[in-house]
Amino acid sequence: MTPIPIEDPDDPRLAAYTRMRERDLVGREGRFIAEGEVVLRVLLSPRARFRVESVLLSPERLPGLAPALTGLDAPVYLAAKAVMGAVAGFPIHRGVLAVGLRGPDPAPDALVPAGPALLVGLVGLANHDNVGGLFRNAAAFGADAVLLDAETCDPLYRKAIRVSAGTSLTVPFARLPTGDGLLDLCERQALVPVALSPRGEAITGLPPLPRALLLLGTEGPGLPEALMARARRVAIPMAPGVDSLNVAVAGAVALHRLGGERLARL
Amino acid sequence: MTPIPIEDPDDPRLAAYTRMRERDLVGREGRFIAEGEVVLRVLLSPRARFRVESVLLSPERLPGLAPALTGLDAPVYLAAKAVMGAVAGFPIHRGVLAVGLRGPDPAPDALVPAGPALLVGLVGLANHDNVGGLFRNAAAFGADAVLLDAETCDPLYRKAIRVSAGTSLTVPFARLPTGDGLLDLCERQALVPVALSPRGEAITGLPPLPRALLLLGTEGPGLPEALMARARRVAIPMAPGVDSLNVAVAGAVALHRLGGERLARL
Repeated sequence: MTPIPIEDPDDPRLAAYTRMRERDLVGREGRFIAEGEVVLRVLLSPRARFRVESVLLSPERLPGLAPALTGLDAPVYLAAKAVMGAVAGFPIHRGVLAVGLRGPDPAPDALVPAGPALLVGLVGLANHDNVGGLFRNAAAFGADAVLLDAETCDPLYRKAIRVSAGTSLTVPFARLPTGDGLLDLCERQALVPVALSPRGEAITGLPPLPRALLLLGTEGPGLPEALMARARRVAIPMAPGVDSLNVAVAGAVALHRLGGERLARL
Repeated sequence: MTPIPIEDPDDPRLAAYTRMRERDLVGREGRFIAEGEVVLRVLLSPRARFRVESVLLSPERLPGLAPALTGLDAPVYLAAKAVMGAVAGFPIHRGVLAVGLRGPDPAPDALVPAGPALLVGLVGLANHDNVGGLFRNAAAFGADAVLLDAETCDPLYRKAIRVSAGTSLTVPFARLPTGDGLLDLCERQALVPVALSPRGEAITGLPPLPRALLLLGTEGPGLPEALMARARRVAIPMAPGVDSLNVAVAGAVALHRLGGERLARL
């Protein structure tokens, strides 16, 4: 790894870092942006599922990150923060960026392990904070993979990666066109589909489910009734008069119940 | 309730709504701002602990909210969204604001019930999203009150109220100068102080604690060692290689364990 200093914001080697916010919205043709030290360290670790195309650091960040960059098979560019800001279109206070390559999405069925399995299925979740938070919780509670319907936002969106603390780079995910596709997959793979509903059985009394997929929908409308009807409905006990939690929080409590007992024995 | 139309952004009756962001930072001398319909409905409900000084709505929001405003003993001002924005200093897209009166803070010991008790103690939490999220989780899992050290941010900060879904207006809270004060209160009140630590006993095996106070610190440094040493340390089982959750999420899982079994019997 020999760092390459760059002084010109129009240098074509930085093309993938330009106009960052506009391109967050329109997509990057197979690339994603990783920002900040926590996320970069995950991207550089063997846990990450994605290849690095390049790294862009402000020079004062190099000494601390150099050990993590040894052996990296991609260019490391150095540019002053003012140049980074001119390229990105807004100030890059932390001075740490990288471009990763998405590669092809895995097939959903390929992400279901034989034997004990815990998956998460996201339906219609358009909020990047919630999707990022759910990846972080999926990683913490040992979920094997996350499956997304077409309406759920991109886990490799810049902010989603950051909120996930980098776990959207490590927890495998794949897309299905519809929520119904998630239920069909559960049938094929002998997974118990579990959905949260205030009228479900108490999750505190749920027997161990060796193969389960936790379905999560938006906080307001929740999961479509047709999906609910095909799932095992469980309730997180809540105080009278309270009927909802943030979806990432509800997901964490449910994953703790579904996966936590197994983790406690590790 | 007879709504009072106002057209002049400099009308002195709207003084408490002016320069909203600057005054978020410096405080409002005993007042707080509630924004959005969800929060306003909580503020107007009997569950809220605070008095309303005034309400400010854009005219199109009045019909939907009028039933909730009947019997309100405070003025309801009507102003076009452009006027609201000129007063506040930024666009008020939802057209729903109110000013509440803080009143005196309760004494911390007065918030500890006799008999079964579940409290939350926040130490050094400076992030409004986390504090708001923790109030929402405290409400959901039936906590009796939240106690805050001097470093923890204000639960009546505008954004904290919004993230709490209005529950920082309903769950009682009080301040103690230091985290040590929280542990002293636990001794006086015969509450078991519970702290989260990766090296603690598994929370999945914890016996019921009829009187407990859950201590939560910042995600990075966590609780000071001196506080940890005085607490019962419990761990949320997590996957190998993962050692942290967002603090509001960790709090939710712990409150579910500490309070959830009781709620499941309600």
